[in-house]
Amino acid sequence: MKKYAIAIHGGAGTILRHLMTAEKEMQYHQGLLDAITAGELILNKGGSSLDAVEAAVISLENFSLFNAGKGSVFTHKGMHEMDASIMDGLTLEAGAVSCVSHVKNPIHLARIIKEKSGHVFLSGLDAEDFAYQMGIELAGDEYFYTQERFDQWQEVKDSDTYQLDHSDKKETGEKKFGTVGCVALDQHGNLAAATSTGGMTNKRFGRVGDSPMIGAGTYANNKTCAISCTGHGEFFIRAVVAYDISCLIEYKGLSLKEACDFVVKDKLVKMGAEGGLIAIDAYGNIELPFNTPGMYRAWKNSGEETKLRIYE
Amino acid sequence: MKKYAIAIHGGAGTILRHLMTAEKEMQYHQGLLDAITAGELILNKGGSSLDAVEAAVISLENFSLFNAGKGSVFTHKGMHEMDASIMDGLTLEAGAVSCVSHVKNPIHLARIIKEKSGHVFLSGLDAEDFAYQMGIELAGDEYFYTQERFDQWQEVKDSDTYQLDHSDKKETGEKKFGTVGCVALDQHGNLAAATSTGGMTNKRFGRVGDSPMIGAGTYANNKTCAISCTGHGEFFIRAVVAYDISCLIEYKGLSLKEACDFVVKDKLVKMGAEGGLIAIDAYGNIELPFNTPGMYRAWKNSGEETKLRIYE
Repeated sequence: MKKYAIAIHGGAGTILRHLMTAEKEMQYHQGLLDAITAGELILNKGGSSLDAVEAAVISLENFSLFNAGKGSVFTHKGMHEMDASIMDGLTLEAGAVSCVSHVKNPIHLARIIKEKSGHVFLSGLDAEDFAYQMGIELAGDEYFYTQERFDQWQEVKDSDTYQLDHSDKKETGEKKFGTVGCVALDQHGNLAAATSTGGMTNKRFGRVGDSPMIGAGTYANNKTCAISCTGHGEFFIRAVVAYDISCLIEYKGLSLKEACDFVVKDKLVKMGAEGGLIAIDAYGNIELPFNTPGMYRAWKNSGEETKLRIYE
Repeated sequence: MKKYAIAIHGGAGTILRHLMTAEKEMQYHQGLLDAITAGELILNKGGSSLDAVEAAVISLENFSLFNAGKGSVFTHKGMHEMDASIMDGLTLEAGAVSCVSHVKNPIHLARIIKEKSGHVFLSGLDAEDFAYQMGIELAGDEYFYTQERFDQWQEVKDSDTYQLDHSDKKETGEKKFGTVGCVALDQHGNLAAATSTGGMTNKRFGRVGDSPMIGAGTYANNKTCAISCTGHGEFFIRAVVAYDISCLIEYKGLSLKEACDFVVKDKLVKMGAEGGLIAIDAYGNIELPFNTPGMYRAWKNSGEETKLRIYE
């Protein structure tokens, strides 16, 4: 069997051990394990990295503690507006969607956009029309309702402030960038990346972050790497983070680790941008850099153990 | 006086001399001249490149022969959905908007998003709410109505096909990527870029192209260059065209001309992607590469004559 590798994330932020209960930590570990297993099963059987990243992100979207799919945060209007994107490193084909409210698995919609729409990026209610026409599973507002997210929204909904997931939660100091993602290398040597998010609590005005933006939140190219980001999206857009790492490898000759460290721990820090990302290259090297206290993450190389981590 | 420079485009495509009337050609020249003059007046007085690119693009949006602002094409539903973005090469701050239907000058909204929203990218009806709250001029459907665009839409509205502006017009073979943009260098050495579009005739499902995507359709960085693209947006997104040129300069040491030629005339051609772009660097070098028969364009360096061109 040829080698394969996979990494996932469930968001970065001020995730501190002393604020976590043992029970919650176990739940997060379970969510990460289920997702990486869903992706790895596909890779192990010789399936494509594209199928693997989609399967892992669907699992993360269905797990209600992460801010994507079920578990997405509430907007200012009390809705859920989700964004997602996926990219195939072999063909450089990509699909992306923003501001959909009733699609159970936005990453699956992004995949179908890539394959059947003739476009890369669809948005809003009209994108839901496309999902409906494609027979993609829709879900009502009640599916996306979770008590914890509702309570987070209630705390801030009468203000003009928004929360980056749990950001600025006064009693805990917690600050979390709620996004999920997966990158994978399959046995055929192909890379893929996928990212999905429920955005920011109390967000207004149809704000779009980096998650659905090819080059910013998601990028994959067999020649260089596959990347999925999580962080303060406005900075990640301006820094074109995912493609920047690819260019540092392709044009400047940096290694995956050098490129990741430079962008996340130097460039983004100088911009005042918090977050992290997961990265993989065609050799199966995996990097999971972040400049916050924690990032929910798991990774596995074929023939090795699965690693699950939350803190630094 | 220190040197300054400016370039604008009104879209690339199958623009052929034998299909153009002398009268229409004069109108296009006038539209280009008005826009570049609007930008140049600002640069000449020592104003900022950011003000100049906004003023030039507003002029292009107000000119009904170009597909942006007034003159935008019709969507499948008989609406106008416009996208725009702007970036400041000094601060790397950016603003972008997609799928707005009632904003007279989307590029002005993008500028205000950059400066007042706390975000980079807003979309849809909620972005129009933001525009309304900011006191930005809105306009009804009748403002955006033009007979020529309506007739284009009528030709294809009962089909599933969409047109990239005039694309595949059978009787003429014309194919045009309707987008406008401007890049500028001001006397303080600062670069800026702006892009605006009315999208594709008969477009569906809230399709978003490269124009509002920082890194794809628009990018500016004093260290490297400012870029505004026009072309088949799906390919420009996947190739992250604008930031790619910046990276080729910054990481690989290419000149502006080498980077532009490689991306537009080699990389995009190999992908099957048609289009072009305008580019400027901090030395006042201007490039206007395209791989289609024509691109509406004008450029000027301080102390030199204004050049207006349509064909190769």
